[in-house]
Amino acid sequence: MDRPPSPALDRVRTSFGRQAAMALIRATLPVVEPGRTEIHLPHWDGIEQQHGFIHGGVVGMIADSAAGYAAMTLVPAEASVLTVEYKMNLMAPAEGERLIARGEVVRAGRTLIVTRAEVLALRDGAERLCALMQQTIMVMHARPEKLDAPPAA
Amino acid sequence: MDRPPSPALDRVRTSFGRQAAMALIRATLPVVEPGRTEIHLPHWDGIEQQHGFIHGGVVGMIADSAAGYAAMTLVPAEASVLTVEYKMNLMAPAEGERLIARGEVVRAGRTLIVTRAEVLALRDGAERLCALMQQTIMVMHARPEKLDAPPAA
Amino acid sequence: MDRPPSPALDRVRTSFGRQAAMALIRATLPVVEPGRTEIHLPHWDGIEQQHGFIHGGVVGMIADSAAGYAAMTLVPAEASVLTVEYKMNLMAPAEGERLIARGEVVRAGRTLIVTRAEVLALRDGAERLCALMQQTIMVMHARPEKLDAPPAA
Amino acid sequence: MDRPPSPALDRVRTSFGRQAAMALIRATLPVVEPGRTEIHLPHWDGIEQQHGFIHGGVVGMIADSAAGYAAMTLVPAEASVLTVEYKMNLMAPAEGERLIARGEVVRAGRTLIVTRAEVLALRDGAERLCALMQQTIMVMHARPEKLDAPPAA
Repeated sequence: MDRPPSPALDRVRTSFGRQAAMALIRATLPVVEPGRTEIHLPHWDGIEQQHGFIHGGVVGMIADSAAGYAAMTLVPAEASVLTVEYKMNLMAPAEGERLIARGEVVRAGRTLIVTRAEVLALRDGAERLCALMQQTIMVMHARPEKLDAPPAA
Repeated sequence: MDRPPSPALDRVRTSFGRQAAMALIRATLPVVEPGRTEIHLPHWDGIEQQHGFIHGGVVGMIADSAAGYAAMTLVPAEASVLTVEYKMNLMAPAEGERLIARGEVVRAGRTLIVTRAEVLALRDGAERLCALMQQTIMVMHARPEKLDAPPAA
Repeated sequence: MDRPPSPALDRVRTSFGRQAAMALIRATLPVVEPGRTEIHLPHWDGIEQQHGFIHGGVVGMIADSAAGYAAMTLVPAEASVLTVEYKMNLMAPAEGERLIARGEVVRAGRTLIVTRAEVLALRDGAERLCALMQQTIMVMHARPEKLDAPPAA
Repeated sequence: MDRPPSPALDRVRTSFGRQAAMALIRATLPVVEPGRTEIHLPHWDGIEQQHGFIHGGVVGMIADSAAGYAAMTLVPAEASVLTVEYKMNLMAPAEGERLIARGEVVRAGRTLIVTRAEVLALRDGAERLCALMQQTIMVMHARPEKLDAPPAA
């Protein structure tokens, strides 16, 4: 509301808004700050695996995206980011009403950014750590995201 | 067709068929053999990221699932499998008409199974390697998948 | 000195003391607490790579060991631990007088323990984060470490 | 013997020869080909862990180096390579007379190279797969390795 405008944070929100895959799973991006973001995901039946938990691959999607967007908050306007790789431990079933993926930058170099994310499951008001991720992001200088075209979806 | 029946391979197909998240992204499982599987995914607009490629998180979903199901083909009927962790390199944009994730078992221990997957993008008849994954699966003995209930979706 | 005796922490120190490879690189284990340890390593010429920094493989050795021993502090006397896998980001050259690897447990399950380690380089009194690791440890129940025999070295 | 001279392969051998840490553990580099290398390591008591096997951290050292040098065979003379990160599964104890780490390039981009390594233990003439690694290497253009100075050790 009374937050000062930040072009970098706006670019992140715009990019997220154009990812059809995030809309498909019903993920939102309520928190975008320099070096960290949060993606939230309600539990609904379309993203379940065979036992009624949220699919581990979907947990991976929001962890990867939360950390990647945390990196994107720190790069200049004329640059974009790419996920080089990530490693993910799934520690508990994603059981609950909602998942929260928290991404944060550990070290931002000029070309590579190392990030981390954790995914928490909210159930009856309690948080439980269900996944932990470590990721490498590459900064593509002089190659901004093309966000002026109309959205794909 | 004239393939001898294999309960283990049928369990894998049944489990896959009950994963709502795989149906959501329109993934199919056309190949299931002892120690290996293939998941196919058509390119459609609902799974895109902001540049019109298939979302990296979706690439991760099918790699993780292909390798996990490759592991499941090798466990006894009274056991189930869990993904402990995986590591994924994204090497090229997932650009093309279709993705193919090939999962295979590298070493099957009694409690842990190490697997690998590669994801290829098909474009104009040519295959391009776009992702590589290494994964650890845990065998849950005496805890079969509950597949007799009606599907969740 | 006036610390209450802890058999688990003593088992960790004894095990470390029997690892010839840790002595070979001149690593020490000055900190052992429930769920966390520190391994220290002086810079000396035998562990260098071609540019005079400490070899990245040696950085990996102490990160892997620090986190594995953090896990071992939490397992019962009749159990031992095995490294299943780890993932390591090398973020800066290991340049300095000394390295400190800090290992900690993130989640301790009955069979698997997820840990994390960071490696800091000390140079002219300043600490610099040079590596980050995420690791999976397996608990081997009813298979204690054999520590009563004379050390190998 | 009658192999044509290759400056890139010679640079790799020279670099390896200057790594004091490889000499410390008694590793050798008998195979260097475009896109692949082998590091061999005899079992001796200085590199053991507490049960008399070769230390897992030492297994990691040779896997990381074998794959990194496989990458280095493919970069131009005015460039050098850095390990960005790697992930390693330890699948069996490193038990035997000798270890062989085989590194190979999976995909060589201009800035990043993805590699893989496996480590085999030789025992009584039989090979056993004991570790599997996946790695990301960064190419540092216009920053050759400084190999003309006398070796550090």
